Amino acid sequence: MGSALASALLDRGHPVTVWNRSPEKAKPLADRGARVAGTPADAVAASGLVLACVLDYDALHTVLDPLAEAGALTGKALVNLTSGAPEQAEAMAAWAEEHGAGYLDGGIMTTPPGVGNPEMMFLYSGSEDVFTAHRPVLAALGDPLHLGSAPGLASLYDSALLGLMWAAFTGWLHGTALVTADGTSATDFTRVALRWLNGAVSLFLTTYAPQVDAGRYPGDDATVDVQIAAIGHLIHAAEARGVDNALPELIRSTMRRAADAGHGSDSYAGVIEVLRGPSAR
Amino acid sequence: MGSALASALLDRGHPVTVWNRSPEKAKPLADRGARVAGTPADAVAASGLVLACVLDYDALHTVLDPLAEAGALTGKALVNLTSGAPEQAEAMAAWAEEHGAGYLDGGIMTTPPGVGNPEMMFLYSGSEDVFTAHRPVLAALGDPLHLGSAPGLASLYDSALLGLMWAAFTGWLHGTALVTADGTSATDFTRVALRWLNGAVSLFLTTYAPQVDAGRYPGDDATVDVQIAAIGHLIHAAEARGVDNALPELIRSTMRRAADAGHGSDSYAGVIEVLRGPSAR
Repeated sequence: MGSALASALLDRGHPVTVWNRSPEKAKPLADRGARVAGTPADAVAASGLVLACVLDYDALHTVLDPLAEAGALTGKALVNLTSGAPEQAEAMAAWAEEHGAGYLDGGIMTTPPGVGNPEMMFLYSGSEDVFTAHRPVLAALGDPLHLGSAPGLASLYDSALLGLMWAAFTGWLHGTALVTADGTSATDFTRVALRWLNGAVSLFLTTYAPQVDAGRYPGDDATVDVQIAAIGHLIHAAEARGVDNALPELIRSTMRRAADAGHGSDSYAGVIEVLRGPSAR
Repeated sequence: MGSALASALLDRGHPVTVWNRSPEKAKPLADRGARVAGTPADAVAASGLVLACVLDYDALHTVLDPLAEAGALTGKALVNLTSGAPEQAEAMAAWAEEHGAGYLDGGIMTTPPGVGNPEMMFLYSGSEDVFTAHRPVLAALGDPLHLGSAPGLASLYDSALLGLMWAAFTGWLHGTALVTADGTSATDFTRVALRWLNGAVSLFLTTYAPQVDAGRYPGDDATVDVQIAAIGHLIHAAEARGVDNALPELIRSTMRRAADAGHGSDSYAGVIEVLRGPSAR
């Protein structure tokens, strides 16, 4: 991922100084015009903007702590693209402030081949000043979105969006297992599935989001009760084809819990009431 | 739904004869120019194309059996939009053939307010001749897609697509519960979630579908093993906010089963191997 980030910056003509624990990884970047620093201190000294992307927060502290203690981060803008928990991002922001650095936490919503594609989202949270000052550079990596000043937000969104992705992946695989059992190709099914996801399903989510914010979930023509009946067809068809039904069965039992809690004539958005923690209700 | 279908046909200037068990439901349609039949036989006699949309297959047979026995379906094109299982559609196609009618089974991939919107998909399977002959009329209802001549396909796709929808809904609600616990609005989160779903997530599915067809799942940068580690962040963050984790825990255990079966360095598409029935493997 570090190489992909540096490459995208070089592609847009930004001067880049790189450092990696394994110097040979920097060779292709050096060939393309990157300056290779011998130490993290050299790399940090070279620019006002420091992008960090390492395995985890332990690795991050191993690299940055000696620099911070030497005062080398004072006045720098630190943009941390290391994956972690919201709480880790918050602690890092406090640590950066203590050492005189502006702090922005980031979530990369693509894999390395997608870095540099302006359609791909890079989520940021933390210092708005750092974001505004360095936005043109960050735009070389992907589309930069600033979610808010709470440093943990980018990480929280990152997890929430990955959760949506895994759920969609698993639902798609279940459907694919179902239709391929009857001889349809996954490619044919997926063409229709993508139209469905990007059309009607997206329209439903657009309708449901303000329902969640209002705490009222008018069901209209697609109530939880109606969908409890409909999911029976899916479970039956999948069972007949030997497809694992753990996912639709979990969804049905979650809908039934929502119905039992009084949300049977609500839209599917009402199901959030049984997913939320007791403190949120 | 019957009213929405008839309305969409009237909107495009098609002559429509309607029948409903409750005649008062037909009144607004009569005001807009529909002919109201006194009996199902009158309705069927009025047109070469018969659209049926009732509660279930029992209701369908109650209405159509007497007509079929009287020979009233001979030479008609019967398009059945009643929800049911693929096997019911197959039996209905055989029944229609026996009574001299062409048969097309359909799945309406929208709610009544979406009927008539050319973006919304209407899935059909069964007689290609009926589809081709009546396509201009069917196009008044939504975008008509013919999936194949096996009559059960539309119903199978319908269930598979609804399963994808429920999975995406539940993943989205879980993520929404997570971020709203920290004060973000569902509307703000959903704006980002839709870009994610229609961008990166859709690109992944486009990449994964031919992997499923080939039975080989190159993992590149996003292997099942990497995602097992990443889902831990989500589960941890959700737990800290009191959000129900049944969905991500099921997904993690499904990924672990895939890894145990030798798909740890595959892409997520490899998970289909543990969802499929033993006969498909």
